[in-house]
Amino acid sequence: MCVLGLGLIGGSLLRAAEAAGRDAFGYNRSVEGAQAARFDGFDANEDLDQVLGRAADSEALIVLAVPMPALPIMLDHIRTMAPRCAVTDVISVKDAVLQQVTTCGLLDNYVGGHPMAGTAHSGWAAGDARMFTGAPWVVSVDDHVRPDIWTDVMDLALDCHAVVVPARSDEHDAAAAAISHLPHLLAEALSVTAGEIPLAYALAAGSFRDGTRVAGTSPDLVRAMCEANSADLLPVLDRAIELLGSARTTLADRASVAELVETGHAARMRYESFSRPEILATVIGAENWREELAAAGRAGGVIRSALPSRDSRG
Amino acid sequence: MCVLGLGLIGGSLLRAAEAAGRDAFGYNRSVEGAQAARFDGFDANEDLDQVLGRAADSEALIVLAVPMPALPIMLDHIRTMAPRCAVTDVISVKDAVLQQVTTCGLLDNYVGGHPMAGTAHSGWAAGDARMFTGAPWVVSVDDHVRPDIWTDVMDLALDCHAVVVPARSDEHDAAAAAISHLPHLLAEALSVTAGEIPLAYALAAGSFRDGTRVAGTSPDLVRAMCEANSADLLPVLDRAIELLGSARTTLADRASVAELVETGHAARMRYESFSRPEILATVIGAENWREELAAAGRAGGVIRSALPSRDSRG
Repeated sequence: MCVLGLGLIGGSLLRAAEAAGRDAFGYNRSVEGAQAARFDGFDANEDLDQVLGRAADSEALIVLAVPMPALPIMLDHIRTMAPRCAVTDVISVKDAVLQQVTTCGLLDNYVGGHPMAGTAHSGWAAGDARMFTGAPWVVSVDDHVRPDIWTDVMDLALDCHAVVVPARSDEHDAAAAAISHLPHLLAEALSVTAGEIPLAYALAAGSFRDGTRVAGTSPDLVRAMCEANSADLLPVLDRAIELLGSARTTLADRASVAELVETGHAARMRYESFSRPEILATVIGAENWREELAAAGRAGGVIRSALPSRDSRG
Repeated sequence: MCVLGLGLIGGSLLRAAEAAGRDAFGYNRSVEGAQAARFDGFDANEDLDQVLGRAADSEALIVLAVPMPALPIMLDHIRTMAPRCAVTDVISVKDAVLQQVTTCGLLDNYVGGHPMAGTAHSGWAAGDARMFTGAPWVVSVDDHVRPDIWTDVMDLALDCHAVVVPARSDEHDAAAAAISHLPHLLAEALSVTAGEIPLAYALAAGSFRDGTRVAGTSPDLVRAMCEANSADLLPVLDRAIELLGSARTTLADRASVAELVETGHAARMRYESFSRPEILATVIGAENWREELAAAGRAGGVIRSALPSRDSRG
């Protein structure tokens, strides 16, 4: 397996794949990052064409773990150097990646992925082989995906001890806007607001720390994921503003925040009791397998051990 | 020491005070709560007048650990049964408590307090003797406070391994709105918004869990603290809505959330590097001691070991 980009997620993936006994190697643009990985005993290089040549020779699965802005140039190199390799990614938006892959003519080779894991830190040193343990790892079931590549990506996620959530790219992006991108904007707004009140930092405790933790993430990363998903982020941001505005009105008019607090608590309780049934019955490549997996994922279903596959182009 | 109310905070306080070697006893309205505390080996009773009679006889410091709505009736009983006891509280708003204490005629006995600690759970069973370890514990330095009672409350907080932050009640409430009450409303809004997107719970990971953790708090507790502090909560809620609205506009107009993300990250970084100098020089009861402590607290200062006191009514 070949990882392009050895930051927090790519670096964790290289470690996790090695720990699972895979033959894994990686590329990192900065010499420092590649050196740090080599120093830690991993197979890493800063020469992209050399790494991609090796991926082509070994028919490796290529994993894109670069920031969105670096994607077009990576895809160009893959098309030139390793046009027959299967390709996946670990980037936090899926429709925008899908579009660039399509533009580049690599759609047939591609199955999107997104492990829902991370910390507020970045770079090789912040990585951890256990980053993905127990985390949901979305593997896209868009109309074009090939069963053989889907199986490869599923196997990689399971080797990293993640649970696989099958989902369409558009549904992934709508959900990610609500559970990842919106939380970042709320955390930023809370940080700014509290920073303007003299005594606030002196009293800050658990609810402030938790509520602003992700504001510690590098602004470039936060901007990249929010801005690449603006079409899905706007409606959930509007909804959050609407809910807060209604609470503001009832608080001012009759000193009550009952409606927001009660519906919010009920929603959080539903989340806490959300069940994760295991997906067992689907055969990858069988008729309607993509639609079946998308429906199961939407209902909370996860893949914990490899599904059987009918080894065809389905 | 006498604790009125043995829920999460009061129950933790009774445990922490005992662990510090204090003679501590408590009252709980529900027989079940008092029984649970007795079963765990603590001195607890559900007969309020008996507990307050004992507090009066032993000149105990009385700690109010009841929800806001129960406060007037508690204060009435204290005035009747133990009118000479020193009184503090651990309630999350300070001006509203101060007003009720004033109305009840107990102002001369009272120094407000608020340990900035808690979990999303409630009740005796959720308590923990180490709840306050390292937590900021606000002790109010309003114009009326007496040095002898202030010293008693400071000593209690230090016995519980908290760090004391001296602050005026009005400044406490403005800060608490920003770092405690606003985070609760943001968490509720995030829970509701995500709950409306089909795939959201299936993908929810760290940023959603952290951002909604406090939405797990009992709605009654959240409402009580937000609604009792509406005058201070409204302006910070307005500010947060304004920041989110501006980000919405730039995201829609030019696919950018740069301003919010960069100022939010900078504010969080300031918080992470916020220093907590120890307050060492003030003598409790000396001239301008209250103003001196309020200024030191505003600048981030904390009391880690007992300050000397001039034993007068200052």
